[in-house]
Amino acid sequence: MPSLNPTHDPARRSWVASANHSEADFPIQNLPFGRFRRRDGEVRTGVAIGDRIVDLAAALAAGLLDGAARAPAEAAVGDLRGLLELGNAGASALRARLSALLLAGGPDQAAAGAAADRILVAQAEVEMILPTTVRQFSDMCVSTFHIGRLSGNDDRGQPICPPVFRTLPVGYDGRATSVVVSGTPVRRPNGLWTEQVGGTGDPRFGPEPRQDYELEMGAWLGGPDNPLGEPTRIAAAADRLFGLCLLNDWSARGIQFWENMLGPFLGKSLATTVSPWIVTMEALAPFRAAAFQRPAGDPPVPAHLLSDADQRDGGLDIALEARLRPHGAAGKQDAVICRTNFRHMYWTFAQMVTHHSSNGCSLGPGDLIGSGTCSGPALAEAACLLEANVEGPLSLPNGDTRLWLADGDTVILRGRASRDGYVPIGFGEATGRLMPAPDPAA
Amino acid sequence: MPSLNPTHDPARRSWVASANHSEADFPIQNLPFGRFRRRDGEVRTGVAIGDRIVDLAAALAAGLLDGAARAPAEAAVGDLRGLLELGNAGASALRARLSALLLAGGPDQAAAGAAADRILVAQAEVEMILPTTVRQFSDMCVSTFHIGRLSGNDDRGQPICPPVFRTLPVGYDGRATSVVVSGTPVRRPNGLWTEQVGGTGDPRFGPEPRQDYELEMGAWLGGPDNPLGEPTRIAAAADRLFGLCLLNDWSARGIQFWENMLGPFLGKSLATTVSPWIVTMEALAPFRAAAFQRPAGDPPVPAHLLSDADQRDGGLDIALEARLRPHGAAGKQDAVICRTNFRHMYWTFAQMVTHHSSNGCSLGPGDLIGSGTCSGPALAEAACLLEANVEGPLSLPNGDTRLWLADGDTVILRGRASRDGYVPIGFGEATGRLMPAPDPAA
Repeated sequence: MPSLNPTHDPARRSWVASANHSEADFPIQNLPFGRFRRRDGEVRTGVAIGDRIVDLAAALAAGLLDGAARAPAEAAVGDLRGLLELGNAGASALRARLSALLLAGGPDQAAAGAAADRILVAQAEVEMILPTTVRQFSDMCVSTFHIGRLSGNDDRGQPICPPVFRTLPVGYDGRATSVVVSGTPVRRPNGLWTEQVGGTGDPRFGPEPRQDYELEMGAWLGGPDNPLGEPTRIAAAADRLFGLCLLNDWSARGIQFWENMLGPFLGKSLATTVSPWIVTMEALAPFRAAAFQRPAGDPPVPAHLLSDADQRDGGLDIALEARLRPHGAAGKQDAVICRTNFRHMYWTFAQMVTHHSSNGCSLGPGDLIGSGTCSGPALAEAACLLEANVEGPLSLPNGDTRLWLADGDTVILRGRASRDGYVPIGFGEATGRLMPAPDPAA
Repeated sequence: MPSLNPTHDPARRSWVASANHSEADFPIQNLPFGRFRRRDGEVRTGVAIGDRIVDLAAALAAGLLDGAARAPAEAAVGDLRGLLELGNAGASALRARLSALLLAGGPDQAAAGAAADRILVAQAEVEMILPTTVRQFSDMCVSTFHIGRLSGNDDRGQPICPPVFRTLPVGYDGRATSVVVSGTPVRRPNGLWTEQVGGTGDPRFGPEPRQDYELEMGAWLGGPDNPLGEPTRIAAAADRLFGLCLLNDWSARGIQFWENMLGPFLGKSLATTVSPWIVTMEALAPFRAAAFQRPAGDPPVPAHLLSDADQRDGGLDIALEARLRPHGAAGKQDAVICRTNFRHMYWTFAQMVTHHSSNGCSLGPGDLIGSGTCSGPALAEAACLLEANVEGPLSLPNGDTRLWLADGDTVILRGRASRDGYVPIGFGEATGRLMPAPDPAA
């Protein structure tokens, strides 16, 4: 496990009471970064604590962020991109200071508590926005269970995948301008598709008939960038990762199957929903795990993607869940449609970074890398409907069934990292409601 | 043909003498926009005229850009993005004013000529940079001759392509941060590839053995954007196009063939070279042509991609050429390795815009859309080596042969639009020299 520091101490509790509930996503051990719009319209950056947010500009103005925390706090104000550019050392210094300020019974409680009215904002009273303008969005596909679900298992009991998936983290460039923050309505796309799943037959243009979601995690990269032509080696890759979020890679299967000659394009770029908070790699340190253990018979990890440290703790134990709230459902009739874990991923995020830059491609602060669908081996761990409906439509608690999403349905992604002896941390939500398609003939 | 205006008048000549040579790329009828770094390091935007550039900030300071030209000139100064956001009407007003200022024998010649020392810069004395930070880069693939080259022709004599290519403009999202301006050296990438063309066998990691180029055109989009979820209809698509450039979509075939599950990724994102000048759609108006004539038996244009105006003049007659300057070649031993024309493209740029946004994807100013490889039916019109070498290696004037590019080779793209009764205009060059790969084991 990577070295831990006082911010991970499970004995720490905050004087912000809501942070101490056992189900809280944002205890004092988390302190994720995000950006929000206040009621007066002003955009601020902040750090989540319980059901509150520390407004960094206000905390700076109150003189509470001095010393090593001052420069990163100043960099974060306005657009989080400034803090991403500073990288992990800056974020670490800022989190250490915030952890001290928010600590119940600590030497800074009196000063911070006296300023609470100015520096704390209720999450319920603000609108979260994207943490930063997405510089570039790439999406990978690194669960062999996702890739192989429709192909079955080989005689080792392993998912049948084209060989390339076990030699490198397969990916593609996505559409950065389609990334939206949790809560943004998502419009069903129009496009050319065929009645036949798989994309044979004559296509017609109209509302996508097979709208799907994909439960993924996203990694926000920090600075500095690697210049074009200069790859990031695996030993340096982990420090390129700033933090993680939940990511719903909305997938229009009809469009995707018909257009598919040069990979996903309009089948994906309708929208990609992310959770608003960047949970730092530092906060996630207690939940690191060994990289995926390759079953006997798989090819070895290529030398340029192999490091002892990454194999030891480049994985992450994060429980993930997708829920579907059917349109018109009264009250709490959410269906849990997937329960999985990030540790099922065949490649680590560090390997994705090294692979992505291995041809010299420049990665930099503000880049977002999706993991691909986080499916595990069991059918209940299928992290999209394309997989989950292989044995037929899903039955929902309200009596409805679903092969694909219906207009008005809401998909809610949640994630939580826990480990004996540590305080669990969460990611908040990545939520989106599917709205009807525009009139295709308009 | 779209309506022409006085800036297209073939009788117009400039008092900048170099603009009047019959071979000039930048006569007074062109007036493309670009961005450059002066010797003192300052970045300026400008308009090419002959072998000179009008420095827009200097022309503003000299009081030469008033009236309707003032707002677009002010928007253009600093970063051309401001002008792209204003869109085509602003660019048109600015070009009209510049055309008047630069006109030989016109009423403004005296004032402009008196300021010539301040407002004109020699192209040879500045470094061109990207016209703007690329917001997003997408690349299409819309020449059936390119797609079908390796598959042969059907019984109609038409290239054999998967059906989707004739129902929509196939494309994929590319890597915006890999777009570089002409003259930037391009590094051969490392990656996983197999000895077998096609990507079978065991891959190994090392310098790409089959480095290729692709001759394309790129379209720079202007504003305003279409918000996410709101498609741009075909009738409105032409006005989204601000101007065109040459584009070399450097392609690492070994990497591309091995990684290819979700489309091109690292096989493309090593670098994409563009020519520095944006030749406006207004300047290109005399060279509009009918859209590609679909041979009998092809499916009809889908209704949402069909407009009379686009069918009538959505095509473009632009002669394109690729040259290869082999490493170590003495003097002018360039080989012309392709001569083709943009009119071979199966879809128009307006159709690409409408298709790209048909799922609600937001397109906006600063977006760059590549056309895909501009191959024509003849082998001499094959616009990449993958096609051109189907009958064996290319023979170069210096006695060398090439199946693929060698380290030190330079690829030079040029383009020129001409039509009887009009002054031809050119695009300058998109040039890149291939440098050796980094040490794969470092």
